[in-house]
Amino acid sequence: MKKFILFSLIWIAVINISIAQKLLSPDENLEMEFSLQADGTPVYSLNYKDKKVIEPSKLGLDLKEEEDLLKHFSIANTEESTFDETWEPVWGEVNEIRNHYNELEVELVQEGTERILILRFRLFNDGLGFRYEFPSQENLGHFVVKDERSEFAMTGNHTAFWIPGDYDTQEYDYVESRLSDIRSQMEKSITANVSQTSFSPTGVQTSLMMKTDDGLYINLHEAALIDYSTMHLDLDDENMVFTSWLTPDANGDKAFMITPAQTPWRTIMVSDDARDILASKMTYNLNEPSKIDDTSWIEPMKYVGVWWEMITGKSSWHYTDEFKAVKLGETDFEAAEANDTHAANTKHVKEYIDFAAEHGFDGVLVEGWNVGWEDWFGHSKDYVFDFVTPYPDFDVKEIQDYAESKGVEMIMHHETSSSVRNYERHLDTAYQFMKKYGYDAVKSGYVGDILPRGENHYNQWMVDHYLYAIKKAADYKIMVNAHEAVRPTGVARTWPNLIANESARGTEYQAFGGSKPNHVTVLPFTRLIGGPMDYTPGIFEMDISKLNPNNNSHLNSTLANQLALYVTMYSPLQMAADLPENYMKFPDAFQFIKDVAIDWDESIYLEAEPGDYITVARKEKNGNDWFVGNVNGNEVRTSNIKFDFLDKEKTYIATIYSDASDAHYKNNPQAYEIKKYRVNSKSKLSQKSASGGGYAISIMEADRSEAKSLKKL
Amino acid sequence: MKKFILFSLIWIAVINISIAQKLLSPDENLEMEFSLQADGTPVYSLNYKDKKVIEPSKLGLDLKEEEDLLKHFSIANTEESTFDETWEPVWGEVNEIRNHYNELEVELVQEGTERILILRFRLFNDGLGFRYEFPSQENLGHFVVKDERSEFAMTGNHTAFWIPGDYDTQEYDYVESRLSDIRSQMEKSITANVSQTSFSPTGVQTSLMMKTDDGLYINLHEAALIDYSTMHLDLDDENMVFTSWLTPDANGDKAFMITPAQTPWRTIMVSDDARDILASKMTYNLNEPSKIDDTSWIEPMKYVGVWWEMITGKSSWHYTDEFKAVKLGETDFEAAEANDTHAANTKHVKEYIDFAAEHGFDGVLVEGWNVGWEDWFGHSKDYVFDFVTPYPDFDVKEIQDYAESKGVEMIMHHETSSSVRNYERHLDTAYQFMKKYGYDAVKSGYVGDILPRGENHYNQWMVDHYLYAIKKAADYKIMVNAHEAVRPTGVARTWPNLIANESARGTEYQAFGGSKPNHVTVLPFTRLIGGPMDYTPGIFEMDISKLNPNNNSHLNSTLANQLALYVTMYSPLQMAADLPENYMKFPDAFQFIKDVAIDWDESIYLEAEPGDYITVARKEKNGNDWFVGNVNGNEVRTSNIKFDFLDKEKTYIATIYSDASDAHYKNNPQAYEIKKYRVNSKSKLSQKSASGGGYAISIMEADRSEAKSLKKL
Repeated sequence: MKKFILFSLIWIAVINISIAQKLLSPDENLEMEFSLQADGTPVYSLNYKDKKVIEPSKLGLDLKEEEDLLKHFSIANTEESTFDETWEPVWGEVNEIRNHYNELEVELVQEGTERILILRFRLFNDGLGFRYEFPSQENLGHFVVKDERSEFAMTGNHTAFWIPGDYDTQEYDYVESRLSDIRSQMEKSITANVSQTSFSPTGVQTSLMMKTDDGLYINLHEAALIDYSTMHLDLDDENMVFTSWLTPDANGDKAFMITPAQTPWRTIMVSDDARDILASKMTYNLNEPSKIDDTSWIEPMKYVGVWWEMITGKSSWHYTDEFKAVKLGETDFEAAEANDTHAANTKHVKEYIDFAAEHGFDGVLVEGWNVGWEDWFGHSKDYVFDFVTPYPDFDVKEIQDYAESKGVEMIMHHETSSSVRNYERHLDTAYQFMKKYGYDAVKSGYVGDILPRGENHYNQWMVDHYLYAIKKAADYKIMVNAHEAVRPTGVARTWPNLIANESARGTEYQAFGGSKPNHVTVLPFTRLIGGPMDYTPGIFEMDISKLNPNNNSHLNSTLANQLALYVTMYSPLQMAADLPENYMKFPDAFQFIKDVAIDWDESIYLEAEPGDYITVARKEKNGNDWFVGNVNGNEVRTSNIKFDFLDKEKTYIATIYSDASDAHYKNNPQAYEIKKYRVNSKSKLSQKSASGGGYAISIMEADRSEAKSLKKL
Repeated sequence: MKKFILFSLIWIAVINISIAQKLLSPDENLEMEFSLQADGTPVYSLNYKDKKVIEPSKLGLDLKEEEDLLKHFSIANTEESTFDETWEPVWGEVNEIRNHYNELEVELVQEGTERILILRFRLFNDGLGFRYEFPSQENLGHFVVKDERSEFAMTGNHTAFWIPGDYDTQEYDYVESRLSDIRSQMEKSITANVSQTSFSPTGVQTSLMMKTDDGLYINLHEAALIDYSTMHLDLDDENMVFTSWLTPDANGDKAFMITPAQTPWRTIMVSDDARDILASKMTYNLNEPSKIDDTSWIEPMKYVGVWWEMITGKSSWHYTDEFKAVKLGETDFEAAEANDTHAANTKHVKEYIDFAAEHGFDGVLVEGWNVGWEDWFGHSKDYVFDFVTPYPDFDVKEIQDYAESKGVEMIMHHETSSSVRNYERHLDTAYQFMKKYGYDAVKSGYVGDILPRGENHYNQWMVDHYLYAIKKAADYKIMVNAHEAVRPTGVARTWPNLIANESARGTEYQAFGGSKPNHVTVLPFTRLIGGPMDYTPGIFEMDISKLNPNNNSHLNSTLANQLALYVTMYSPLQMAADLPENYMKFPDAFQFIKDVAIDWDESIYLEAEPGDYITVARKEKNGNDWFVGNVNGNEVRTSNIKFDFLDKEKTYIATIYSDASDAHYKNNPQAYEIKKYRVNSKSKLSQKSASGGGYAISIMEADRSEAKSLKKL
């Protein structure tokens, strides 16, 4: 509290108010109302420009082994305040973020137990955040949350973009349906995953994107998920009321709390313009400022990797076919015969380093470099990797020296196989090993069921682990890109060395049977709300059988769409995921991946409709170049954009990488066109995007003479 | 295998034998028979001097998700061999241990699955050990043990000394009953414990001590419990057949195995003389030799501690009464007011150091020195201790400097509150902190339910943890005394820095309502079979209300019995657990505790009967003095011993600390006598011990002139 008091511009203390409390957003478009029901149950509701967004919805928590925190409350105190500051993210879509909200703090006391519960509401122009706070008090020290009962009562049968609620995976294709159809579509939407635990036929994950029939865009998520379990939403599909559904531990308990404590923020973003949802920084704003003082070592990276060839089945992570089972420290890899497919060998890695150096990539990721991949999965293996022992054909020192000589950073890979105790036991030595060999970034993975057995990927125990790994990495000045870890909730503001997560269905699924063609028009409205994704775009060869004759998967995307993703899927970590030889087949298109920036001063969402299209323009950090990306959904569409974001004084050359007129994600994905134009702030573009297509534009400042030969757009 | 082949004196390979295989012990008193039933089920039996010990009993394992390893076996190969070596323990009851056995290796192949299972039997003069081995093979890599089905078919309704089977505690009073009465006595025998999980009305723990009506003493236990779950025994009390019952994980699975692998050894000790059970070194012999090369830093210790005053409730572990809940790193202890009872303060600890120095103790243990004791228990608290932050009134540096100046070692205390992930996260820094401040030994504790929640104290997961902590301690040259950890199974041979465990009902229960007066006549037959216990004897004030008026507990032991425990309860770590002021009330009796050795060249069990009495004579390591201890059970008894173990050439002075004639554990526990005699190898003693009593003797080599004035015994 103290901190915010310092920044407060307005401060109003209202004592012992028991009538309804109203709170307005700074722009007064949003109005939140809080009150107590006759039985002392807290209730809130939310309006946007006089439209109801949230009908009166109850708040409270079920506790284990003591009286619940659901009702019998009276208001002891309320306080309103305003906060307005601007902060600079270490990396991001913009160079400055305004954090501006009006706050209502409601101090409740429960009759009988005399326990104090604080509800804190923050109303931004782009939405509402609220959380429960449990101050230090005589009658509440330690308690166990049996469940949280935060309601989000919808006003109707909205259209939702949802994935099945699950304790162990987020890697589902999004379903677009009416709320009333979630139940009927649930079963077929739960596609197979190597670790999955669904819990309810109407349970869905956050961030949940919705659209109302009267044109409102609503997004439900959470912010600052720290020391608590991940929230799902369970829908009462008769009344269209979502209730929070927390992720349990092995015993079914949801969260162990010690006062003073608080829950994460529950967030409701709302606008009548879908672009506002994409541009919102509310989730970051509800997180604490960076706890890393010196962030100079945290740097966005564009990288290639020894990875897609394994994902497609062309190569293998494991080194030998000799072992039925591996015991680290006992199994003799030096004496074993290498198979023909092990990709992470010194010679091959050097080829990637050469490629990265030649084309200006910052880094090279190598998976399958360390012993243990022979039986790493599906055996609930405890001591599965030690993270410091390379296979005989991977010479860490030689590779590092070579990479250094070429000015390329090596990126470490730590697949944990979800054996989390084992990873924590090796974390210090693993990070030390990285620093010894000059690695500053790690991609970690949590494939398979969690060990300790009975735990799952998103409960409080594991949420704590992911943060533990991030904090410890920060001690070593290591950047983390955690795959299969819990979905982000803006925590990267506080720990900006968390440069990316997977936490959704990434490009790899295009090699596992494919994702929906409009998948990438949904992700920015859902998964990216909490932070950047290591989506690993840039696949140029959509026919996976060309890499591996046994894999008939097809990438449901055009090549132009793949280029656009570097702009539409914001991340400070961007991979060019395809094989070097595939890039070399399309060097003109590859030029965009080489050119595109990865850190930005400005981002302007030009067009957006979840499931249909997203068009965004971004200005590179500390530079004058702009990049535009458009991703298109299932239907062919013409995008119409203006270049009025450009500097009015300047002339630019725009290189447009677009779908050819006959392009189609399925039948003709590699059909693209590249055209160059002279553009300025008055230019306009009308550009057709194919089904599953899109376009990418680089806009580089140019001498008037240089641009003169080009056609004006 | 290779290792043993080198030592083999006899080697017989018998191919494709399918008839019964017999194996004799080196002295031929024991005979083991192995065969296959018609359905290919492995069966073994055991005789001792022509008496049946184990009736034909099945062997095998239930597996999860694949065909069981129970039947359809045929014998592919059998091999017999003999092994005989003598090794020197780092510490122990004797300076040399002979490891002498005949071995039968039976290689079984299962029809259909073609899986190979090896049964290895080792027959010593004092008993049988057998285990299952799973060699590396094509058809068995990873597997999950659903349950082990090793049978131990008793020949009758024996008398047993048992405690209830439990996944979380071993701290029960022993029950002496017929096997047929286990069921009826189970419920009342499950006394309250802070963490406990019983599983069967006829489930008991090992080591299980039994006596047959025809005079055989049988002990069932296990050896080398490593990377497997702890074995209990479940009794079929119609047929008197015990079956192994493994300790499950959070999902109910018993063990995750990766070939090559083996189970711990299942041990059956047998003799017609109870003393042979106590003297047996079979459990150690079934463990691997020390994996610590330089063991020079491992030293037996006699110590005092700031502990009993907290156990009795006279003092407190916690520092302040101000906090309902503590958050490490946030709660401000410096600003808090100390309570009046916090014992671990610099001034008080220095008094203990003074006492230790004055009376020749090696070390001082201090509990309650580090922040977190205010809410350490009962809240399933994850981040409960950091093991490096002392309370404001405990000056680590000042205390260490003081102890060093006095020649006293400080012993660290790490209570984990069973928050095991938290402990592992802090293990390196905690051990480093110890070494920085000169601590070479740690007492660790695992009070309460295990975190990760759903796990328990004795499953494979936790067995692995205890060993992890011991191995890491060895890296730092730290000795470990682990309380509430799994019962020892001779693993201290391999890791001799494991200098003691609790793992049974220790002296502390005498301050929690008392233990049975004959408890200490059972423990050496049960708990001590696997390794030494930090029993913390030496309580002189049996009326606990004298320390704490609110505690009416009474110590069910005479003072002489307390002295005898230093000899009867072998441990390289021995505490004088009472308060200095209580010792100062009985300085003549205290002299025995000061004199008694803690490491031995020789140990001779003179008298023994489980539940009734134990008398042992031990010769100090690298010296000529002997010490004798006698502990007595419920009934008054006269012990008759000969001193023929003494050097025939020498004269000694024996100081006998015995119960006074009117002594009684309950009514007159502090009534003792001290008498000095001249003794030699021809001396005899007839000494009465009270109910719950005993005696202790120090026998020191003396000049003839010095001894002359004393009466001859």
